[in-house]
Amino acid sequence: MLNLAEKQINAGADILDVNVGVPGLDEEKVLPKVAKLVSDSFDIPLCLDSANRDALAAALAVLPGKPLVNSVNGEEESLAKVLPVVKEFGASVIGLTMDDDGIPNDAETRIRIAGKIIEQAAKLGIAENDIVIDPLVLTVGADSMAASVTLETIRLLRKEFGVNINLGASNVSFGLPDRHTINQAFLALAIGEGATCAITDPIKLTPIIRAADLLIGRDENAMRYIKNFRGRQV
Amino acid sequence: MLNLAEKQINAGADILDVNVGVPGLDEEKVLPKVAKLVSDSFDIPLCLDSANRDALAAALAVLPGKPLVNSVNGEEESLAKVLPVVKEFGASVIGLTMDDDGIPNDAETRIRIAGKIIEQAAKLGIAENDIVIDPLVLTVGADSMAASVTLETIRLLRKEFGVNINLGASNVSFGLPDRHTINQAFLALAIGEGATCAITDPIKLTPIIRAADLLIGRDENAMRYIKNFRGRQV
Repeated sequence: MLNLAEKQINAGADILDVNVGVPGLDEEKVLPKVAKLVSDSFDIPLCLDSANRDALAAALAVLPGKPLVNSVNGEEESLAKVLPVVKEFGASVIGLTMDDDGIPNDAETRIRIAGKIIEQAAKLGIAENDIVIDPLVLTVGADSMAASVTLETIRLLRKEFGVNINLGASNVSFGLPDRHTINQAFLALAIGEGATCAITDPIKLTPIIRAADLLIGRDENAMRYIKNFRGRQV
Repeated sequence: MLNLAEKQINAGADILDVNVGVPGLDEEKVLPKVAKLVSDSFDIPLCLDSANRDALAAALAVLPGKPLVNSVNGEEESLAKVLPVVKEFGASVIGLTMDDDGIPNDAETRIRIAGKIIEQAAKLGIAENDIVIDPLVLTVGADSMAASVTLETIRLLRKEFGVNINLGASNVSFGLPDRHTINQAFLALAIGEGATCAITDPIKLTPIIRAADLLIGRDENAMRYIKNFRGRQV
């Protein structure tokens, strides 16, 4: 019943995404129970993956520390429901760059939505460094320009807001053969533009993330790259 | 006696690098013979890999088409010897961003040397689109900032000159474990900055190059990516 296979990777730190979104399941009851159980069992920060305000509030009420909420978006209803919960429990939050008009095809509109989320959060007293923006990753299998729009959004987000950026990275290769190679190339390109977090398969994709970090000068003496390599040796 | 394992890959076109540089071997005699033999046997453009003016002239005299000369650099002697041969035979040329003071540690000096090569070539009447600049790739195993300097040089070269850019890509991982993953990440990052050619292992690294091209919007309907994938299936 759980989707616990995905992790977030942020500058070497892992966050576990907890998602109980299965049709027919009562998120308000199950999310706090599962989140608490995971929190008590493992020493890892959690990300609560739900759009349900009450489920989020119930889970945040029983968790220690500062969980990450995944997610709010630019829809008026989402902003009005999710952000107050984030503020109430001192959580951090992922903001998706979509709104009542759906997912924009261009980087400029996604940036505008990011700005709206950051502004609304600021009005409630949520600090900018508690906001992670997700520029939205769609498959290049359906639209050859999909990834370049996301890469441009990352570049503009870093330039205009300097916020952390999260990617549902593996979406990019949906429907195409040899998804691993596309996912690898996308993560390297995205890190080059300034992406800081990804929801992705940590076993398969940490090596390319460590390599890209090393190449852009974020890994002195290749210590983290080599540590990851050693960890992969049986 | 030949180093023919390396190929150049440029937007889907392959160029074969011919290098007979072995200690004790007479390049002036051997390079033209080998280059002619390869040219007569295979339908692929050639890159003549030598710093020897006379060897280059002898090989260019017997080759058809427009070979690529690898390479000239910013040293006064190199500019004075190699560029006139390139002009005489209507070849194109790779310019390395190093000079009499060695390899610069910073992007700005590499850009200045590239500008000097382009300027000297222009004085002889060599067109800018016959010049490919190599921003120099050193291993991140010896200097954690080595790759980021090269990536910055690529970015500035594309911005200031718009020339094609060639990379000795695999140098970046020398001395480190799992070189393949580092080479993959580097090629994706470099393509993101605007690199157009790489001297690299085409069997191992074409997949990531095709994936990166697809992701930056240079492969409509993923045609070239999928063609490469199919070619890899046994």
